[in-house]
Amino acid sequence: MNEIKDQSIQIFLDELASKNATPGGGSVAALMGAQSAALTSMMCNLTIGKPRYAEVEAEMQTLLQKSEALRKTLTDMIKADVDVFNRLMATYSLPKTTDEEKTARSEAIQSVLKEATEVPLNCARACAEAIALSRIAADKGNSGVVSDAGVAVLAGYGGLKSAALNVYTNAAALKDRAFADAKLAELEAILKGVDKGVEEVYKIVKAKL
Amino acid sequence: MNEIKDQSIQIFLDELASKNATPGGGSVAALMGAQSAALTSMMCNLTIGKPRYAEVEAEMQTLLQKSEALRKTLTDMIKADVDVFNRLMATYSLPKTTDEEKTARSEAIQSVLKEATEVPLNCARACAEAIALSRIAADKGNSGVVSDAGVAVLAGYGGLKSAALNVYTNAAALKDRAFADAKLAELEAILKGVDKGVEEVYKIVKAKL
Repeated sequence: MNEIKDQSIQIFLDELASKNATPGGGSVAALMGAQSAALTSMMCNLTIGKPRYAEVEAEMQTLLQKSEALRKTLTDMIKADVDVFNRLMATYSLPKTTDEEKTARSEAIQSVLKEATEVPLNCARACAEAIALSRIAADKGNSGVVSDAGVAVLAGYGGLKSAALNVYTNAAALKDRAFADAKLAELEAILKGVDKGVEEVYKIVKAKL
Repeated sequence: MNEIKDQSIQIFLDELASKNATPGGGSVAALMGAQSAALTSMMCNLTIGKPRYAEVEAEMQTLLQKSEALRKTLTDMIKADVDVFNRLMATYSLPKTTDEEKTARSEAIQSVLKEATEVPLNCARACAEAIALSRIAADKGNSGVVSDAGVAVLAGYGGLKSAALNVYTNAAALKDRAFADAKLAELEAILKGVDKGVEEVYKIVKAKL
């Protein structure tokens, strides 16, 4: 199969809707984040070079570099979610007849579950960065297209809260509670203040329309 | 150019990030809505036929029909946003030398602006329906994949609030204030109670993880 990012949007949506386990919500979270970063890039590209925005030119150049790097990271995460999910499913299929097999299977599941907790945690972190970047675009970018910064913040928020659900799901299945609690604490730190921050950006955007 | 839905995700993201005016936030809004509907369909497809969920089988079949029809509607809206934007840009390029030309140009702009207000309003309405459908999936669908219903509600919410921004933008440029106010009133009716509703679905999902 082609990597998801090389599939058409129609085929991605068809496969999403199907009863196949992948792609699923984790890929949608990453794609929402990637769309957020792309819209911030668009805001930069529609600001850079405009005489009216000469004062923020350098800042927009820096923002564009960050949003483009982040877009690549988040686009790669569409696949990362599928990969770790498939590996997790494979461990569940390991033999479990003898006691040795049962132990080996359980250890394999727990090992991949740790990765399956970290993948959406990384996605959440990247989406939080996408939100932060969209705020700069909303504040300083071309006000003629500021609604795109508003969509960027909402897409980033959707991605972040979606990724969080997958962290909760996989952390709940972990036996290593110290590891799980550490990851959940990282997630809560990422989520802290985000609701309020997103609302603020939305208001900044709406006031400029 | 191919229709956007037939382009790869990578190309869509590249074009989104570029300085081309389309695709932009309006297409992202519709795509978020389409992803929401697709995830509700996935929840249905992973619930239907499972003995444990025999009691909700008929309801899930009905939900799937609705979510698949809505997915098609929202997928088509990715293109509708680009089309109306391009038509709007074309009216701005009309000649404006003579008084007659100025009048004709202004009338053409105002006429397409009405459509450009209705396109995101329709997207907002469809996203609100996607949110409502995701709630049924969260309540009654296979609890083993309930996080996908959580992502569905978040994607629908992102789509709705994003589409709203485009309604505000285009309504603000309308000279026919009675028309604009009627459309804004429709939008407010769609938005009413949505924040609270989405938070409720998110809590339902989180409690089941």
